[in-house]
This record gives sequence, C-alpha cells and structure tokens, in this order.
Amino acid sequence: MPQDKKKSPRPKADTPKGFRDYFGADVTERKAMLDSIAEIYHLHGFEPLETSAVETVEALGKFLPDVDRPNAGVFAWQEEDVPGGGRGDWMALRYDLTAPLARVAAQFRNDLPSPYRRYAMGPVWRNEKPGPGRFRQFYQCDADTVGSASVAADAEICAMLVSALQGVGIARGDYLVRINNRKVLNGVLEATGVEGDDRAADVLRTIDKFDKIGADGVRQLLTVGRKDDSGAFIDGVGLTDAQAQPVLDFLTSKGTSNTETLDNLTRAVGASAMGAEGVAELRQIADMLAALGVGEDQAVIDPSIVRGLGYYTGPVFEAELTFEILDEKGRKRQFGSVAGGGRYDGLVERFTGQKVPATGVSIGVDRLLAALRAKGLAGQDSRGPVVVTVMDRDRMAEYHAMAAELRAAGIRAEVYLGNPKNFGNQLKYADKRNAPIAIIQGGDEAARGVVQIKDLILGAKLASEVSHEEWKSQPAQTEAPRDGLVQAVREMLARW
Amino acid sequence: MPQDKKKSPRPKADTPKGFRDYFGADVTERKAMLDSIAEIYHLHGFEPLETSAVETVEALGKFLPDVDRPNAGVFAWQEEDVPGGGRGDWMALRYDLTAPLARVAAQFRNDLPSPYRRYAMGPVWRNEKPGPGRFRQFYQCDADTVGSASVAADAEICAMLVSALQGVGIARGDYLVRINNRKVLNGVLEATGVEGDDRAADVLRTIDKFDKIGADGVRQLLTVGRKDDSGAFIDGVGLTDAQAQPVLDFLTSKGTSNTETLDNLTRAVGASAMGAEGVAELRQIADMLAALGVGEDQAVIDPSIVRGLGYYTGPVFEAELTFEILDEKGRKRQFGSVAGGGRYDGLVERFTGQKVPATGVSIGVDRLLAALRAKGLAGQDSRGPVVVTVMDRDRMAEYHAMAAELRAAGIRAEVYLGNPKNFGNQLKYADKRNAPIAIIQGGDEAARGVVQIKDLILGAKLASEVSHEEWKSQPAQTEAPRDGLVQAVREMLARW
Repeated sequence: MPQDKKKSPRPKADTPKGFRDYFGADVTERKAMLDSIAEIYHLHGFEPLETSAVETVEALGKFLPDVDRPNAGVFAWQEEDVPGGGRGDWMALRYDLTAPLARVAAQFRNDLPSPYRRYAMGPVWRNEKPGPGRFRQFYQCDADTVGSASVAADAEICAMLVSALQGVGIARGDYLVRINNRKVLNGVLEATGVEGDDRAADVLRTIDKFDKIGADGVRQLLTVGRKDDSGAFIDGVGLTDAQAQPVLDFLTSKGTSNTETLDNLTRAVGASAMGAEGVAELRQIADMLAALGVGEDQAVIDPSIVRGLGYYTGPVFEAELTFEILDEKGRKRQFGSVAGGGRYDGLVERFTGQKVPATGVSIGVDRLLAALRAKGLAGQDSRGPVVVTVMDRDRMAEYHAMAAELRAAGIRAEVYLGNPKNFGNQLKYADKRNAPIAIIQGGDEAARGVVQIKDLILGAKLASEVSHEEWKSQPAQTEAPRDGLVQAVREMLARW
Repeated sequence: MPQDKKKSPRPKADTPKGFRDYFGADVTERKAMLDSIAEIYHLHGFEPLETSAVETVEALGKFLPDVDRPNAGVFAWQEEDVPGGGRGDWMALRYDLTAPLARVAAQFRNDLPSPYRRYAMGPVWRNEKPGPGRFRQFYQCDADTVGSASVAADAEICAMLVSALQGVGIARGDYLVRINNRKVLNGVLEATGVEGDDRAADVLRTIDKFDKIGADGVRQLLTVGRKDDSGAFIDGVGLTDAQAQPVLDFLTSKGTSNTETLDNLTRAVGASAMGAEGVAELRQIADMLAALGVGEDQAVIDPSIVRGLGYYTGPVFEAELTFEILDEKGRKRQFGSVAGGGRYDGLVERFTGQKVPATGVSIGVDRLLAALRAKGLAGQDSRGPVVVTVMDRDRMAEYHAMAAELRAAGIRAEVYLGNPKNFGNQLKYADKRNAPIAIIQGGDEAARGVVQIKDLILGAKLASEVSHEEWKSQPAQTEAPRDGLVQAVREMLARW
C-alpha cells in the first residue's frame, strides 16, 4: 500500500552550499573569454573534446572503490545493482579534465590521430569543504598534446599560452610564462650526491625555504645548521660545502637572459647526465620559442618554478599576471598565477600498460576572468535591451511590432510584459534591465502617429517614480514619427 | 594500520554506459548552433543563466527524500554527515533546466527583474536505462519568461522559436510551430458535461485515438461503443450524440486559416467560460504573431497538439520539422518534433507559496543538430589544419616558425610532433587530421631556400604509403620560395 502523502513543508530555495549560479554578464563574459581562447587553440591545430561529466571511479583513478563510499574529494554514487546479480559500479563527477583525457586517449587510441592535440573547457567538481572564493564546481580550460615525446610540444604549449593571454586582452608586459624542467632539479640532487637517498627530501624542503632565508641561510641548513628567528637551532642536512654548492648555484641561476640562465644551470648540474638532459631540453625550448617569435619578456626560463611539480616528469610552466591589483584590504599585490602545466608520463599507461608521453596546460578560468575584470577588459556588453513600454494593454500587438522592427535592425529590444498599470514600475523595470532607451506610445501619440523615445542613460538621474507626463517634459526625451522609430533609436544609441 | 596496497588490475577505459564523448566537429557544430540561438534570444532581451549542475533533491522536487536512496530517475548522493550531528542533505544532478529556474526565481525574486526573461543551455542528467540513441547526459536549450501572466509572453516565445529555427538555417516551409491551449480542451470537456467527473478521463483517452479511428470511431466510442479491428466490442462512454458533438467539433476544428480554426473552436467550446477564455487567448496570440510578422506557414493555431500537456495550464506549443529524411531502414519519414513548451503555474509557488505565472520552450539540442546535419547545414568547418611535416629533426624550430607565420596570417597550422622517422606516418597523420595542405622542407629544399606545398585535397586519391620522392613528382605539389610560404598556401586554399 502506498503511504499517504504527507503535506510536505515548502522546500528551501538555496543554491547548494559551495555552488554558485551565474547570471547574465557572468555567463557572457566567461563565454567571450573562452571563445577567444578556443579560437587560438583551434588556430594551433587543437581539436575540442567534451567528455561526459560522469566517469567510473575506476577510470578516474586516485579514488579507490574498495571503501564503502569512495567520495573523498569527489562526488560519487553507486549504480543500481546489475540485474541478474552483481553490484553496480561506483560513478563520480570528474574532478579535472586530465583524467577523462587519459581515459579517452586509451579508449580511442586506434581512432585518434597521434599525436593528439586537444582542448577542453568545462566544469569540474570537487567534494571539498566550501570556503570563501572556493567552489565545488568550477571551470577549467585545458590544452594537451598526447603522444609526443618531443619538447617541441612543450614549447608549442608555452607559445600558445602566450597567444591565449594576449588573445583575451592581457597586454605584453602584464604576463610572464616561466619555464623550468623537473630533470634539472633532479640533476642538481644528483650533483649533490643525495639523489635517491633519504637526504633528498631534506634538500628539497630546504630549497623551498630559499625565498625566506636567502642563499646563506640555505647554505647553513644544507651543511651545519642554523639558528632560526626565534633563536632555536635547526639541524643541518650535513652536506659538505662542496656538496651544497650545486644547490646554491641552482637557486641563484636566473640570469638576465635565457642564455645566461642556461649557462648557470649547466654549471649547477655538474656531471649529472639527467641534469644535462634537462638543461638541453630547456635550451631547445628556448630556441623554439625564439623561432616562434616569443620574446623573453613573454616566456622565460626560470629555475624558481619548483613548486607543485607533483606528477610532472619534465618541463613545467606557469603563467603569472605581473600587474598589481588592490586586494580586499586595499593593499597592492601582484595578481599572480593564472595557468600552469607541464609534461607528465603514465597518463594513458594506467589503462594500456604502454607509456604515452603527454604535456599540457590548464588555465584557471575564474581567476583569468577576474583579472580581465580588474583590468577593465571584460563587460563591455552589459547594455540591456531597448524596452518598449505598455501604455495601453489593447495595443500589445502594436508594441510587439515595434520591438520586432528594432530587432530586425539588429537592435536588442523587448516589450514590458508585467502588469502595465503602474507606469513607474515599467520604468523601474527598464532601470533594472539596464535599458539604454524606453519607447513610449500612449493613446494620443498613437492617434498622432508618433512615439516618444526616452534616453535612459541621459535620464538616469531622474527618479523612477515620476509620471508619464513629467517624463515627456524632460530634454532626454524626443518624439519621432512612428515609421521613423528605428532611425530615431539608432541615432540615440549612437550618442553613447 | 593502512592496508597493504594491492597491485590493482588496469582500469577499463570505457565511457560510462549511457554517456558519450563529443569529439571535434561534435563540439564545434553544436556550439555554432547554440551560439546562433543565443544571439536570437539575446536580441529578444533574454538573459543567460547558468545554474550549478547540482541541486538539493529537496529543491529539485519530484523526488522524495524520505526513501533510503531517492535516485529514481536522477543521479543522487547523500552529503557527508554534518559535523556536530545530523545527516547530510541528499544532492542530485539536475534532470532539466526548469526546476533550477524555479529555485533561482524564488531565491533571487527580490533582485531579478520581473518579468524575468532568461535562457539556459547546458547538460542535464537522467538516471535511466540507457538505450540506442538514449543518453543519460544530454543538452537542453531553454527560454522562459517568469512572472508574466500575459499571453503576449507566450506569443513572444513562439515568434522567438521561429526566429531561432530560421537563425540556425532551417528554411521557411521546413518547420512549423503549432499552438494550442489547454483551456480549450477543458472547455470542450465542460461543453460535454463530463468536466470534473469520472468520464472526463475516458473522453480524453478517446480523443487520443482520433488519429487511428477517425471521427466516426470517436463518435461511437463516446456514445454506444464500437467493435475494434479484432471484432471485440469496446464499451462506449455513454454520452448522448449532442454531448459528443463538442468533442467532434474540437477534433475537426483545424481550418485553412487561424480565423477559421478559431471560429470552429468557438463553436466547439459552446457555453463554457473556460473554453471561451482559451479561444480568446489563442486569438490574442494569433494577432500578436501577425503583428510580429510571423506567417501562418511558420506558426499556426492547431488544436491537434494535445499530447504531453503534463503540467501545462494554458497555451502549449510544439515545433516540428516538416521535411523528410530517410530513417535507419531507408524509409522516408518526417523529421518530427524538435522543441516544445507552454505556460505553467506553480513553478515558483512550491518555494514561496505565491503563484508566479511562467511560460517557456525547450529545444531538443541533439535532435535539432541531427536535423541540421541531415540538411547539410552543419559541418562546414570540418577542415583540418595545414600540417608542416618534419624532414629534419634538427630544424624543428624552423618548422615551428613556418606554422607560426601561417597562424599569424589567420591560417590554421601545426607542426607534426610524432616520431618523424617514417614520412608515410606523417602523411597518414595529415590524412587523419583532414589537413588540406602539407608543407615539406627537406635538407635540399632548405639549402635552396624553398618549400614544397602539397595539395592534399587534390592528392587525396594517392595512397598514403608513397615516399617523399614520389610525392614531389605529383602535380598537386608546388614549390614556393621560403619567404613566399604564406602567399602560396593562401592561393592553394583559395582553390577550394
């Protein structure tokens, strides 16, 4: 027997915690930015790929299906039990665009061109505790080349990133792509003689402190130890000065040109074959970027990019916006990173057992859009439609005809569709719509074959509660013959 | 103690069942179509809205949270338990774009303009058994006006739908928007005297058989009953001939013009006030469409649109493509419905308790795109990039410079990034990429300062296994000075 339906309380109308809704300009400005980027990627021979939002947890990897509910970090659920026995698969929303690319590259390896250049744009989901500015659904915009071991692929990604940043309007000088190579750092560790032993992690930790404690501090920590600011003594790693030298050479290797930096790095990696390979790759990338017309003020070899290497195995890159903005407390600060990437192996290997080299970059869509807004480079198209007001309910068809005429001339226009009784409400509506112009035709205007055309931008300072008669006396309002409507509106729009 | 990590078997690289991946043209063709539609909607004053993919099950409605796992029809999961006690909310992926609109309209009712015209485009998810051509994630494209009780809003939606269909390239005569009104049918039931009693459902079921059994069959079933094809006797509803007459008038009311149809409908609804209101609304819509310049060959009053009324409360509409295509068995059939909608109440009321009238239309994105493809109206942009081949690995930088020059001239171009050893593989690659042109520069060409430019469209019939030397002898290949590369490519592209 079905239960009696209980009279349920009204549901709450709330965006789920950690999620957000995008209205009007939020959507169009992001779309304009992504369209620009897609155009650049397309020009470079990259093809769009849109995978399903849902993947099996097994294919996503990283999250093991052998726990009861494998939703640490992802939104996951279990499929219905399979008819005839067997539990359903665990499914999840994708948490990035790289894992689905790996699945596709493996699944369609016989059909896709190799190398496969693809770009992808779309939402990803993270089941994390929401916080200010941290959302559980956000956009990513990735470009990757799968199946090319050549650093030419890395150089191309970096050059394309430069084009993309310029394509969305960031001026030369306001961004910088920094390029390093994981192999160089490994080579430095080899040169110190700690590569592969327990002290390697200590050396890496010490390198990360360079920004804070400087070269001398690093030298002390790598060798005999030092007192920190609180006076406490921190044990050293116990290297000799000679062993520590490659690390210091590495940390101070950034020169005034790629050539100088690369020479310094060559010295830092010493006899390490891995290090030499890394430096040679960087040199090739530098040559390739020069051939592609990319200047060192746009993309540069920079050994300081060591953070977040994670699963990267070769070249790594990061794009930073170098202009200053005011933070929430009104202090100036650099805008910072908006994109990052690098070369990684093991992507497709998880599925097929065969190594497939790959490299790619991911742009932080929300951060880049915020940067465009901070620079006044987004939001030009925020103007609302021309609003045709309704003075006489019986002549709705005629008001619609006016709007249709305007649209036929390419002018965004709409008729007020609320209750027309209170004319003030119509003007409030036009204001909320950010309408540049209101069209008004009462009975007397209709009889005389004219329309009133109100410049709302000019008239913005007028209170919205005034009557139709008062409005007509304002200088921002002009009368036009009915058959001159489109022309008159066009002229008024051209004022702004 | 953490478990020992078991050596896990390789994951399967499969798109989850019922989902699909979109490659290249799948993405760009859909995007081009949706961009056209968005432009039309924008011109009509509609604003984009993109809600989160995830909603609380409570807000989505329809699915009750009082069962253990409320995932009938939706993909749902339960949030982590709330710290400090309490179970987490049930969350779900949206199953359409209307339920989230209702939530947003309620949540932001003080901030949004009223009426609120919005469009939305994006994926929705249904937890249904997948079948051929039936997917569990698919695109919807909706336009709705919330907060207007005026049928002018319905007329506008219908006219905009006409513009959208023409905007994506469907020619006048290849589509028809049919409009009916739920109130008319209710009026007909009133005129029969069965409105509100048990026989109403029987009458509606009988109406649905009109296509199969015709007017005489319906008359028999409404009155004394009839024998079906198998000879079995089907009981009648028991109406008198006079009672049945309004239903028959309704079913045969479609005239050769809106005026004729509306006159017939006026007769069919007889003395029913509800019916008269419905007919009056349809008459207003017809007048409005005429004022908007929409012909009766584009949008027409058609009482036969009775199916799928569901929660609609007033005008309903459906767009059909009227041209024929060949089905999977090679038989001609009409393409059929690609959009539908209507007026509905109770949308926002669930949340706020206040009635908010609304009307809208939803376009079936995949079906409309399939129609464009069937008519050859999509896929013009399927040409691949110019492929710069690699004859000499040491001159990668120079090959990249060639591609960069082409791109700077607006020509899509890429360098082959695979292993360049086997030239045949490079040509196979160019073929797979649908490249119009391949650029070839070996050592001798470099020494002479020239490049070979191969027309791959012209040369498409050549086997892809031929050697570089054989290729050079083909007429589809021309030599150009290195500094005339862009010009020569431009000329070759202009051939096609």
